[in-house]
Amino acid sequence: MNINFFMPTKVIMTDNCIHKNAFLFKEFGQKALIVTGSNSAKINGALQDITEALSAMEIQYSIFDKVMSNPTIACVYEGAEFAKEQKVDFVIGIGGGSPMDAAKAIALLSVQEVKEEELFSGIYENKALPIIVVPTTAGTGSEVTQNSVLSNDRMQTKMSISTPILYPRLALLDAKYMMNLPLEVTINTALDALSHAIEGMLSVRSTLLSNYFAVESMKRITQCLRYLTPGKTKNSASPLFLDVREKLLYGSMLAGVVIAHTGTTAVHSMGYSLTYFKNIDHGRANALLLPSFLRFTAKSDAETVKKILTAMELNSADEFEALFLSLLGEHEQITEKEIERYTGITLQSKNISNSKVIPSKEDIVSIYSRSLQIV
Amino acid sequence: MNINFFMPTKVIMTDNCIHKNAFLFKEFGQKALIVTGSNSAKINGALQDITEALSAMEIQYSIFDKVMSNPTIACVYEGAEFAKEQKVDFVIGIGGGSPMDAAKAIALLSVQEVKEEELFSGIYENKALPIIVVPTTAGTGSEVTQNSVLSNDRMQTKMSISTPILYPRLALLDAKYMMNLPLEVTINTALDALSHAIEGMLSVRSTLLSNYFAVESMKRITQCLRYLTPGKTKNSASPLFLDVREKLLYGSMLAGVVIAHTGTTAVHSMGYSLTYFKNIDHGRANALLLPSFLRFTAKSDAETVKKILTAMELNSADEFEALFLSLLGEHEQITEKEIERYTGITLQSKNISNSKVIPSKEDIVSIYSRSLQIV
Repeated sequence: MNINFFMPTKVIMTDNCIHKNAFLFKEFGQKALIVTGSNSAKINGALQDITEALSAMEIQYSIFDKVMSNPTIACVYEGAEFAKEQKVDFVIGIGGGSPMDAAKAIALLSVQEVKEEELFSGIYENKALPIIVVPTTAGTGSEVTQNSVLSNDRMQTKMSISTPILYPRLALLDAKYMMNLPLEVTINTALDALSHAIEGMLSVRSTLLSNYFAVESMKRITQCLRYLTPGKTKNSASPLFLDVREKLLYGSMLAGVVIAHTGTTAVHSMGYSLTYFKNIDHGRANALLLPSFLRFTAKSDAETVKKILTAMELNSADEFEALFLSLLGEHEQITEKEIERYTGITLQSKNISNSKVIPSKEDIVSIYSRSLQIV
Repeated sequence: MNINFFMPTKVIMTDNCIHKNAFLFKEFGQKALIVTGSNSAKINGALQDITEALSAMEIQYSIFDKVMSNPTIACVYEGAEFAKEQKVDFVIGIGGGSPMDAAKAIALLSVQEVKEEELFSGIYENKALPIIVVPTTAGTGSEVTQNSVLSNDRMQTKMSISTPILYPRLALLDAKYMMNLPLEVTINTALDALSHAIEGMLSVRSTLLSNYFAVESMKRITQCLRYLTPGKTKNSASPLFLDVREKLLYGSMLAGVVIAHTGTTAVHSMGYSLTYFKNIDHGRANALLLPSFLRFTAKSDAETVKKILTAMELNSADEFEALFLSLLGEHEQITEKEIERYTGITLQSKNISNSKVIPSKEDIVSIYSRSLQIV
């Protein structure tokens, strides 16, 4: 039996989570850098809760609110310069995966010199500012991983800074910040999380324990999906919907624990090009590809696919595909030239070799072709 | 939904675990203190593996092998003095719960002054030597907890030093060290672990996530129990038995994660007196009490008890009791005077208030009476 488990983040999920746990901030220092996007954390109330909590603890703060979707390398270097100028002791990332991942990279780059060309080398000094995160979507799982995913323009894809020093010290989870997320964002992020759990099962690095987290995650998220089907959905901003939001947040955190141990697989490798070149949302990109990738894997590893379907209470790959279709609607278009290009990039990615069943060039072409509308 | 999760220990379980992961020792320093008992770690090979691994990494070491069962306060102060004399950088505990718990206390006491009368106060400076543990029984779960349980002669019971700084940095799990454990020890430690998982479900601090760990733990351990029934057991030292040993080790680690979050309950409070005064093994003491405690709890909280029985694939509290009887054999004797004394001590313990259903004085008397043979 092989088990390998390491997830040192303290995870607290409860209502009014930030205010109830503000006293924990004290141990991290006298001044915080808040890293967030330009908008959502202001609207959903998370930024205000954090600044109030910091003030209550007499902790100073500066705000870096320039993080865009799929943050660039330039963005995190700029944030790190700002962190140094402001002489902060710790970093608080508020938002979806983009601000949290940017916060992690900033926490690293503000205390060590890493040249841009060595940013994804995996070789770093063993130091970073302490990181606190407040997820405001339920998808990325970044709150419990050692990864910071950034857009790498040189490689024309997304790449990860991955080191245990990037594990947040504290993750504060409160579903109330998700209450006003549009249904489309809720679906895309939920499917991102589901994809993490599923890919964790399909990874060569899966263990009995990571699979156990994955199964619980798949169960919880699948239980929520029925409430998200477009057109059949009750008001996803209604207070009644809070329990669904909480379950999604719990499930996506568990899926984060999974990928922290297993990494992602060829699905993420393939999805990155859809996001980078076609601006398809990250979660949606993976979700578009998953049904075909699952069918591909089932040919060689029916047992694992069976476990995934069972956890999701589905009887077949057909049902899996139908479920995803109901959530995703019409699939985007793709040209044969695009497929060729993305396939080349996928073949060079790290994650692909994590897959239990590694797709060949032809397999990748076939999965792209089946997953999008060829024009 | 309330979740609170923190377990920063890196857990690695694999065959030949110590040698494969010796490179990890380097980050902890130049000199180690090995804390162990006088015998078992020498016989089962764990001590030799550790000293070889340290030598291979050119790390010096001293050995403190004076830890007895249910270690005393005097023992850990002596160990801490030795650690200071030897100027060690980190501590390696090898053994069952006793050496691991002693190693944790030594790691704390060797870098801060704590008066004996304040040892269980819960107030410590935020520093301890890094702790590595190698469990050689599958029961205590101490490899993944923040607790060091010691015999407190002043209070005539066992008490815990409990602080997050006592979480081991690294736990190396290898079932081969358990291959020659006598059947009786295997049963007692397995039932200790099972008791942790069950008590975690019965704790007021249980969460959805701690229960999830508890259920997996109960399932895995229960799957093994059929191989442990005295008289019906194949040779528990046979290589074929390794998979059972591994499953027990996995299950007890999971149960350790549970109690790290939930604490133990009245069962442990009551069991401590049986160990302290009657020298009944710790795991056996809890196991003797569990069936009656479960029946007591079922009267007010049938739902949780049902979940426990379901996880163990049992249909009733009667089946639970029969299973335990088959493993424990004849129960020890107790006098009414003893019951009165132990009840008084139990009522003063911390753990009792952790119980979802808190037993009254009369309930405790009744549980002791039903669990042992009154003479």
